Amino acid sequence: MSRFKHIAVVGAGLIGGSIVLGAARRKLAPSLTCWSRSDTSRKFLRQNGIAQVYDTAAEAVRGADLVVIATPVDRMAETCREIGPALSPGALVTDVGSVKTSILKDASHLPPQVTFIGSHPMAGSEKAGATHAQENLFQDRLCFITPTGQESAQALEKIQAFWTELGSRLFTCSAQQHDAMVAAVSHVPHAAASALILAVASLPDFNSHVAGSGLKDTTRVAGGEENLWTGILLANSLPVTAGLAELEKHCRRLRLAIEQGNAQEISQFLKAAKIIRQSLD
Amino acid sequence: MSRFKHIAVVGAGLIGGSIVLGAARRKLAPSLTCWSRSDTSRKFLRQNGIAQVYDTAAEAVRGADLVVIATPVDRMAETCREIGPALSPGALVTDVGSVKTSILKDASHLPPQVTFIGSHPMAGSEKAGATHAQENLFQDRLCFITPTGQESAQALEKIQAFWTELGSRLFTCSAQQHDAMVAAVSHVPHAAASALILAVASLPDFNSHVAGSGLKDTTRVAGGEENLWTGILLANSLPVTAGLAELEKHCRRLRLAIEQGNAQEISQFLKAAKIIRQSLD
Repeated sequence: MSRFKHIAVVGAGLIGGSIVLGAARRKLAPSLTCWSRSDTSRKFLRQNGIAQVYDTAAEAVRGADLVVIATPVDRMAETCREIGPALSPGALVTDVGSVKTSILKDASHLPPQVTFIGSHPMAGSEKAGATHAQENLFQDRLCFITPTGQESAQALEKIQAFWTELGSRLFTCSAQQHDAMVAAVSHVPHAAASALILAVASLPDFNSHVAGSGLKDTTRVAGGEENLWTGILLANSLPVTAGLAELEKHCRRLRLAIEQGNAQEISQFLKAAKIIRQSLD
Repeated sequence: MSRFKHIAVVGAGLIGGSIVLGAARRKLAPSLTCWSRSDTSRKFLRQNGIAQVYDTAAEAVRGADLVVIATPVDRMAETCREIGPALSPGALVTDVGSVKTSILKDASHLPPQVTFIGSHPMAGSEKAGATHAQENLFQDRLCFITPTGQESAQALEKIQAFWTELGSRLFTCSAQQHDAMVAAVSHVPHAAASALILAVASLPDFNSHVAGSGLKDTTRVAGGEENLWTGILLANSLPVTAGLAELEKHCRRLRLAIEQGNAQEISQFLKAAKIIRQSLD
């Protein structure tokens, strides 16, 4: 017997759409409903026929015992206010946002008779929309769960089991810990990739036709949707700006060593970087 | 009939070894010889049995009508001095270095009766050594050819045909143009990737276990061998430091916009970056 009777996904784009596909494939609930702001995504999901697709978020969540909010980070407060009156008492609500501290504040707009526990599956892409959704998007990917300590053990266990069933590996920590860790491994690299592509394109001899895999890999994430990422960078501004300041400092240190022709310092810098990079594989 | 009678590869590591394998597979010359500083690479190539492997660079080039120097950029002058006396009059010499202006100066150590034309196949990797060589490493990759205008049209045509037969797409330009273009698409991104991994690893909450594809892709090239890259960054220091200065400027601009909560400026910054990044695909 499945853990939930009715799962609703609010904001079925790339991530939300992949949850719908993954939940349907794994029969995680007898009833699946969803909503997307995008006509294209709604049309795609309707044609797919695996979930009931609604034209408003409030309709989609009615009667659900698990609601997954997958709207952009900067729409979270608005989404909570919109679905609040339609939520069933006792419903479990989670999200998929790339920041967690600010989202806890947004979730305070939910009615008191529901339980909110934040989630963050690290499975984004520079692509957007349900047409790019994949039923195995979360397979072997890390998913953060950020309980506050106010929720019941049973509610936490249900959320953890939901992501495990979608194939994720779990990392449970506080919202603050999440935000600091994810700034380092995702938000700062995203900001750096955007700064790098603008910097090299501003050089007088930049020629996009000679770009190889080095530049492409290094800046791939900069292809992400700008408003989604503006919301993320602003919602996690303290750790992100601290990371950018460190990046400026390290760039300057390497630049000065090159200007001074200091081969030993350059080599030590690159070696230290190589050792850390290799430890990620 | 093949264009060359005897091709010699000096410094048969990842790139040089791939030239040996590719030339053997495509029968680009009846005789193939090579040398590598590394015992492992020499042993691997001997076991492979497709080329005569020598213990010194001078022995390897004796009698060759095409010599490909694939030693690191900062060993180029030394290699030219070492092989000079053993080169056959009329031999064609090329290299595979990631910088071209400084290498032209190094190549002035070659005897006057040989012709040097620089090459740069953009097919590196963070891996090193002939054991990682691939016969199709250059397939569909860009290869720069940097004539000085002093060489004969026939010599230039032979070098171009050599790389075309290995599968490369050619880009012919001056050494100065090459260095400025490649700084933008390869050397600055490499320096940036190294600075980024050091910067994020210096943050108090860095946790390598939560790193996903974003950080891994953005910093992949930082896994490269530090001494090889120290040589490249120093040999192309002017365009590289100009690029790093631009990166510092762009990081600072984005950081200040985030600190000020200026959503419009952040969004414009990220959108401009996205448009350039998408144009690379």
